[in-house]
Amino acid sequence: MKMKVIKVLKGKNKYEVFSGIGTFNLLPDLVSQKGLYSNILFVVDQNVMKYHSDKIKSVREKFTGKNNIYIMPSGEKNKSNERYNRILTFLAENNYGRDSLIAAVGGGVTGDIAGFVASTYLRGVQLVQIPTTLLAAVDSSVGGKTGINFFNRKNIVGTFYQPDIVLTDTDFLKTLPKSEIISGTGEIIKYAFLSGREFYNEINDSYNSIISLDDKTLNKIIPGCIRIKAEIVTEDEQESGLRKILNLGHTFAHAYESYFNFRIKHGNAVAAGIISALYLSFKKGIINQTSLKYFLNLPLKIYPNKSLKPDGNEIFTRMLSDKKNKSGRIKFILLKDIGEVLIDVEADKDEVLYSIRKTFIPQSDF
Amino acid sequence: MKMKVIKVLKGKNKYEVFSGIGTFNLLPDLVSQKGLYSNILFVVDQNVMKYHSDKIKSVREKFTGKNNIYIMPSGEKNKSNERYNRILTFLAENNYGRDSLIAAVGGGVTGDIAGFVASTYLRGVQLVQIPTTLLAAVDSSVGGKTGINFFNRKNIVGTFYQPDIVLTDTDFLKTLPKSEIISGTGEIIKYAFLSGREFYNEINDSYNSIISLDDKTLNKIIPGCIRIKAEIVTEDEQESGLRKILNLGHTFAHAYESYFNFRIKHGNAVAAGIISALYLSFKKGIINQTSLKYFLNLPLKIYPNKSLKPDGNEIFTRMLSDKKNKSGRIKFILLKDIGEVLIDVEADKDEVLYSIRKTFIPQSDF
Repeated sequence: MKMKVIKVLKGKNKYEVFSGIGTFNLLPDLVSQKGLYSNILFVVDQNVMKYHSDKIKSVREKFTGKNNIYIMPSGEKNKSNERYNRILTFLAENNYGRDSLIAAVGGGVTGDIAGFVASTYLRGVQLVQIPTTLLAAVDSSVGGKTGINFFNRKNIVGTFYQPDIVLTDTDFLKTLPKSEIISGTGEIIKYAFLSGREFYNEINDSYNSIISLDDKTLNKIIPGCIRIKAEIVTEDEQESGLRKILNLGHTFAHAYESYFNFRIKHGNAVAAGIISALYLSFKKGIINQTSLKYFLNLPLKIYPNKSLKPDGNEIFTRMLSDKKNKSGRIKFILLKDIGEVLIDVEADKDEVLYSIRKTFIPQSDF
Repeated sequence: MKMKVIKVLKGKNKYEVFSGIGTFNLLPDLVSQKGLYSNILFVVDQNVMKYHSDKIKSVREKFTGKNNIYIMPSGEKNKSNERYNRILTFLAENNYGRDSLIAAVGGGVTGDIAGFVASTYLRGVQLVQIPTTLLAAVDSSVGGKTGINFFNRKNIVGTFYQPDIVLTDTDFLKTLPKSEIISGTGEIIKYAFLSGREFYNEINDSYNSIISLDDKTLNKIIPGCIRIKAEIVTEDEQESGLRKILNLGHTFAHAYESYFNFRIKHGNAVAAGIISALYLSFKKGIINQTSLKYFLNLPLKIYPNKSLKPDGNEIFTRMLSDKKNKSGRIKFILLKDIGEVLIDVEADKDEVLYSIRKTFIPQSDF
């Protein structure tokens, strides 16, 4: 098995990401090697359970302590307070103690809510993230952000809580619908912009191989993205500075998701958000028209928003209440060049409305 | 003003406790000196609001940012998930951002739930603890434990989250009912056993002055208790070892509280729990009968449980599900001598039932 190991953070919160084909099967051995608790609750996305039940059951059987599977219904709307309470109740009813381990097997929804549960049940139990979507593999499973949606706002309640291990098993990606893979590339494109030209070009050139889940490509691109994220969160665990660059495109994206009531996928929203951020960078004179056209090339490979026509004013209002904003001003993360990102940039409402409008006009109109 | 300042923890989580008369009035200046955010939500216990509304309003007026008061209904039953959600909703509705500060003004219930809110709203906002009961002043406001009750179990959901400042203003104690003061001495007695003979004797000798809220006595005993707690949590923030000694009497106490459906006060339950722990220490041969009699003298000053007759088996079952237990075994914190505490002691069911029985038999029966 070709596996890559990426270290995240330092000191007592440090952990490793194991990325490759079949890494999920390593869980029992890793738990024992690392002295983690063997009373385990698998929180498993219902679709993952449908396609991979044999694999999950055979791993579960190796745990001789308390072991249960909690099936997590799919979809962003289930990242709710009600679901959070139901998982907590399941743990309490089954008398899970502090010597417990929660294994989140699913996409961002499962990872975020199971992580929030792990961080608050009995003031914190152990956590293993096993991302099964491309998006979770390259982004949400690493870095310790947990959360649920509340009051129709995304991740408004949550914690920073680091997992003990992350297992990125590309086997799980094989049963994903195409649309889910494409959405996952939204975050990959973000890493293309955050890194250097070499990784940007690699992603740009191998975009079709990513989409078709070519093993060799995935085994380069996924660890590549994780490595960038690991470096950033190691530097700034709780998003006081540098880590903000990971939100490239996300201020727009969160507003788009909330506006469309989470009917658009997160990765697609991120791609749209990056497009908006690029137009805003252009409008503010941070990049010129040539750069804009060149940079748009990558996120436009996804371009999932042709038929949508959001109300710009309403999007603007939603951005104002984004949790990253302080003192009622929207701070944008904008691109100056590949690998060169500006944080905390303010913009006039007109400039923002222009960027939103441009994002939802088909490419040919540019 | 005679004020004592006690430092807690080191590094980025460090903070100070300001203990004395009128320290609450220092809040606006301290917030500005320490560069904390000035968008503030006061979560205030309804009884505190009733007796101290002028004081609270005059402090609130000095905050020129967003400022609101959320009235927290009194009583342990309100330390609930429903209330947690209502406070979160209040914050969201009023568009509190990450640049916010929650000031918990009340007893343990208010401090625990407001602390949990602060630790999870937008993945964490700032927090000031302003304990208004003797119990919260000497114990729960310091150390960073937050939580709510769930599934009829105490603090089963929560976080470790350190406040930015603690203001222990003894002015608030003056309007407390006598029963609340007496309950507060339950935790003071715990600190008497955890410290040395000198502090033990001081508490023993000045018990009546504490109960009658003599300023001079309070200004010695309260900072004395906080100092002990500060030393312990500085050593072991997340209760992996030493901090466990702070749970002296608490394994029994939590079961008593839950058994009586939280109709007995926490401090009273702790006093009863210490009595049980002393009997268990005796039964296990850790202390002899002379020591037992001597040690019982202090918690029996409270002795609030004469008329109660819990079912020992039921209490035992509840202790089994205490969150501090791992692998289905109850671990007790037992006393060997003043300042000498044994942790993780296991006991036979018979020994435990004996200790429970003895606790609920009036003193003369000993």
